[in-house]
Amino acid sequence: MNDTKEPIYTAAIIIIGNEILSARTQDTNLNYLAAGLNARGIRLGEARVIPDRPNMIISTVNELRRRYDYVFTTGGIGPTHDDITAKSIARAFGTRLQCDEEALRILQEYYGDELNDARKRMAYIPEQATLLDNPMSRAPGFQLANVYVLPGVPRIMQAMFEGFSHRLAGGHPLLSHTVSALIPESQTAEGLAAIQARYPQTELGSYPYVRNRQFGTAFVIRSEDESVIENAVEELVALVRSFGMEPHIEKG
Amino acid sequence: MNDTKEPIYTAAIIIIGNEILSARTQDTNLNYLAAGLNARGIRLGEARVIPDRPNMIISTVNELRRRYDYVFTTGGIGPTHDDITAKSIARAFGTRLQCDEEALRILQEYYGDELNDARKRMAYIPEQATLLDNPMSRAPGFQLANVYVLPGVPRIMQAMFEGFSHRLAGGHPLLSHTVSALIPESQTAEGLAAIQARYPQTELGSYPYVRNRQFGTAFVIRSEDESVIENAVEELVALVRSFGMEPHIEKG
Repeated sequence: MNDTKEPIYTAAIIIIGNEILSARTQDTNLNYLAAGLNARGIRLGEARVIPDRPNMIISTVNELRRRYDYVFTTGGIGPTHDDITAKSIARAFGTRLQCDEEALRILQEYYGDELNDARKRMAYIPEQATLLDNPMSRAPGFQLANVYVLPGVPRIMQAMFEGFSHRLAGGHPLLSHTVSALIPESQTAEGLAAIQARYPQTELGSYPYVRNRQFGTAFVIRSEDESVIENAVEELVALVRSFGMEPHIEKG
Repeated sequence: MNDTKEPIYTAAIIIIGNEILSARTQDTNLNYLAAGLNARGIRLGEARVIPDRPNMIISTVNELRRRYDYVFTTGGIGPTHDDITAKSIARAFGTRLQCDEEALRILQEYYGDELNDARKRMAYIPEQATLLDNPMSRAPGFQLANVYVLPGVPRIMQAMFEGFSHRLAGGHPLLSHTVSALIPESQTAEGLAAIQARYPQTELGSYPYVRNRQFGTAFVIRSEDESVIENAVEELVALVRSFGMEPHIEKG
């Protein structure tokens, strides 16, 4: 841990798509982005899943871009009539879409003679926005101020995120160690609260699970500071052993 | 479809838990609840994933319970120090926690001599709230006005939801048919927009996917009206065939 006080960077994620809210699709983009942001020391403050409706996109983007350092959206930037994210983002910023020459060139190179009007739509991004490279299917995402607009297809979204995420300013990643044991959460509550009290600067969570009809608990300790986390893990291990169980430890 | 105009019931989901935002856990509760609500004709308007922080829980619950007919929360109602949902919900309603005698009786029956103070905590629910039965690990959830407070462990949350969801007032479920084919989304955009224009009362979405390095698209048509949806599916099938492809159809 550095001695100097460093800024904490925060982010919010907006998952745009009726298909998530209708249960047709199990979202995985939130988890992927959360891991990627965490690895860069950026704290994910909240996430929202909203329908493909312009007013909802506009109000959500405007609320969150003021509250967090970064906002990432996924979904709704394809070529069809229900892809309304780019236009809505432009409206959120009080600007409008324009044809980006570089985006058009990329699409022309990729589609050649098959560049139809629908595909050309994907070259329209808000004024002032900059392109985010899409190594997989070429049609770019874009960044406007602190808002990063990504596609919804997980593999394409991931490839795009990997392309620019190293440029995001972040801090020290939170380290996270997990101590788990087949012991019911409620048996350890008191000891756990005592450990949390002794390590106020760490985040100590307990997550019950069910395995082979037995209740177990995963205790997760998160901190930027390696030595603090090691000490807390030791205490947790002792707590678990005091109930006659041997814990499983995972460091990450 | 009924001739009489029926009310549309709406819902929001709040996933409470640092473990989702830190990427430790891939949430599946949203998808499960979305499917269950959809089956009862309740439209899921949005979902939020927020950290275990009292002020965040209070403001989110208060915003959404006024905007939607139902609000469902998951997470943070266990026995440990980081389980702050019940207390935060009470504060959102300007009320406080009290020991529920029925809940205490349930816990006494289940834990017997092992009912410690931490476990007793799970009998405290907000004044005016009613219990939601937990057939799996007994500790109940609760309902306060239009807010349903459920645990985060998926199997326990699911068992609890199954116990009360048949009592929720709903409407006609949206039927959803999917026509998919190995055809890039952008090739069909024009024909697709024309079909959407002919069926303004249906929701027509297109979702690209990648399979064996080929781009495909799933076209999803949603409507309450079986005959409308059948006609739209026929037109979609014709559109896909006009590109020389044979579609796969899934009705649900």
